Amino acid sequence: MMISVEEARARILAAFAATGGETVALSEAVGRVSAAPIVARLTQPPADVSAMDGYAVRAADGVAGARLRLIGSAPAGHPFAGEIGPGESVRIFTGSIVPAGGEAVLLQEDAAEAGGMVEVREAVRPGQHIRRQGQDFRAGDVVIPAAKRLTPRDIGLAAAANHPWLAVHRAPRVAILATGDEIALPGEPIPPGGIVSSNAHALAALVRQHGGVAVILPIAPDDAAAIAGAAAGVGGFDLLLTTGGASVGAHDLVQPALAACGMVVDFWRIAMRPGKPLMFGRLGATPVLGLPGNPVSAFICAVLFLLPALTRLRGLADAPLPRWTARSGTALRANDRRFDFLRARLEHRPDGLVASAFASQDSAVQSLLAQADALILRPPHAPALEAGGEVEIIRLDLAGV
Amino acid sequence: MMISVEEARARILAAFAATGGETVALSEAVGRVSAAPIVARLTQPPADVSAMDGYAVRAADGVAGARLRLIGSAPAGHPFAGEIGPGESVRIFTGSIVPAGGEAVLLQEDAAEAGGMVEVREAVRPGQHIRRQGQDFRAGDVVIPAAKRLTPRDIGLAAAANHPWLAVHRAPRVAILATGDEIALPGEPIPPGGIVSSNAHALAALVRQHGGVAVILPIAPDDAAAIAGAAAGVGGFDLLLTTGGASVGAHDLVQPALAACGMVVDFWRIAMRPGKPLMFGRLGATPVLGLPGNPVSAFICAVLFLLPALTRLRGLADAPLPRWTARSGTALRANDRRFDFLRARLEHRPDGLVASAFASQDSAVQSLLAQADALILRPPHAPALEAGGEVEIIRLDLAGV
Repeated sequence: MMISVEEARARILAAFAATGGETVALSEAVGRVSAAPIVARLTQPPADVSAMDGYAVRAADGVAGARLRLIGSAPAGHPFAGEIGPGESVRIFTGSIVPAGGEAVLLQEDAAEAGGMVEVREAVRPGQHIRRQGQDFRAGDVVIPAAKRLTPRDIGLAAAANHPWLAVHRAPRVAILATGDEIALPGEPIPPGGIVSSNAHALAALVRQHGGVAVILPIAPDDAAAIAGAAAGVGGFDLLLTTGGASVGAHDLVQPALAACGMVVDFWRIAMRPGKPLMFGRLGATPVLGLPGNPVSAFICAVLFLLPALTRLRGLADAPLPRWTARSGTALRANDRRFDFLRARLEHRPDGLVASAFASQDSAVQSLLAQADALILRPPHAPALEAGGEVEIIRLDLAGV
Repeated sequence: MMISVEEARARILAAFAATGGETVALSEAVGRVSAAPIVARLTQPPADVSAMDGYAVRAADGVAGARLRLIGSAPAGHPFAGEIGPGESVRIFTGSIVPAGGEAVLLQEDAAEAGGMVEVREAVRPGQHIRRQGQDFRAGDVVIPAAKRLTPRDIGLAAAANHPWLAVHRAPRVAILATGDEIALPGEPIPPGGIVSSNAHALAALVRQHGGVAVILPIAPDDAAAIAGAAAGVGGFDLLLTTGGASVGAHDLVQPALAACGMVVDFWRIAMRPGKPLMFGRLGATPVLGLPGNPVSAFICAVLFLLPALTRLRGLADAPLPRWTARSGTALRANDRRFDFLRARLEHRPDGLVASAFASQDSAVQSLLAQADALILRPPHAPALEAGGEVEIIRLDLAGV
């Protein structure tokens, strides 16, 4: 029984929860996901500070023509300890704490300083050019919520809030097992009739780009004992990803080999193209996602099912890959009962996006997968569409894949 | 004399060229930029292979009702060495090499096997279910061009093309120097009237997210000798980034201190808000970008000027940050002669994007910078705009910042 793409995604997601917390240095936290709200440890600005270079004055003294005695200077980091009395002023700079008694900042270009006196050339408005204590945040404020992917801007904000360390979700650990007598590592001797193993490397790169730690296990030959041996060490991982052998043909050994180790299969056939033989199960506490052996099928299944699992593991809120609307550059046939994901090139035309499916949708052609900007979504039983008709797409070019 | 944002960007870009090459393991190459075309070292598929599980047959034998002798089996990785003669067939699987004489693959569901014989239940079309040798790529084909940011899909393709190592551009090395008597590292004692240094950490995270190596130099106090000392070691870097002290006030020591070391200043004032005091120059062979001290100003200048420099250094083609069209959620005042970059929140409404500028555009408010989804672009002398009017924006949420 084939299940739908949506049901497969829901059943896969249900098997994952956010990883626990880890303490990392601020400088290592970009791209990680906050495991707790980040609370300001101080108030910013710590006191009323000047927003400009000029002179701190009492409001009543800031009238055009007034001449004020200059009683000191307060460079940033060197506050003036005294108080500004009537008829007095203090030289001040951007970021300097406004001395006691200071009620406005007279811009330096609106003043003339000579002989220890400052002449006011433009009247001041009370409070002008003063940034108030705590206008950015106050000690105890949540400046960054939990479950947020930390941007460079967040790192700056966490620094300003005085955090040298941050609590983030532990990076998900994904074990990747490629199987098959016919595959070899790049640069190593290729067996007769064999090909170079590429799935594990593409998937490891995908996992790393999306916040996970990828461990590529040694290639397992088509041998149940070897597959079982590789699977024996997956207890410390958040996910075991296999590629190849997930179907139930005579040489598809992954399911029976893992079943013999105790794997419980949830489902293994899904109504999509490419990618029908997608297996999902659980081996002890570790979810197992069995991807097809075809590189294109494996990768598209990873985009649709592995990325949501990683999102949840990393501690982020579930969010399906955003869908965009485009016009189809070609006519499309009516679809059968399988959800079709067509590799396509995007053009940005003045009147909108145009997505043109490649003529070859063969799931073995990796070169076209690498060139694709988008996947055109063709749901089950979608009617035929003329060129120019509207389609939904997933933008691979924006998805970090 | 203030220069325009566009002129500043052009003058900054002119100072940078792509870094040289570096050899990295395939598994380390995701996100890096190819320094040379990646050429296939083999042909894929290496021979005609089966696209399905079934039986390889001669085309003339593939007629409904024919009974063919099963002379062998060819699992993937175990090619059948003989030749298929008239009236013969070989069991075959997805990815198996089609034996000599095989001209089509009869699907297993269209066949009945018993007693060493295979009965054809559906006529075959010559060539059906055979993937031709080289249909993906041939040895010598360029599968990935130079100057491409390598995606997980490219890593898979490079693996399939048999590359254990790749030539990529060296990651740009950026030294970051924060200056000021008033700043302290997060978690360390804060001087009286001081604040926590956040710019260097935000900038380092930005550099790392965009393919660079960031080195945060020790904070330099407001002291010309200390700044000169920090600058003495920048010869090995592709860029020296400073924050704070870039203007020419009494306490703005960065320009004079670096000038005393031989820095040639290109410009130091730019008609934009936030961020007017932006300095650009060259110290020996190393470009120097002097960002403002205000965290918001510093970061927006980094988005506008540092990212394009990193793009060029990494070996990518120049491309300005993509601009999007949105409707303004608020009325906007007519602009003066400075290019204004308004921090804004985005809403995705059914009829399009709405960008609403925050009420406070104070360049010292980091919490709002971190919450901003977009920058609304207000070119010099832009006329007043009513709420709902069209604006151009830069999407911070999509820019990895």
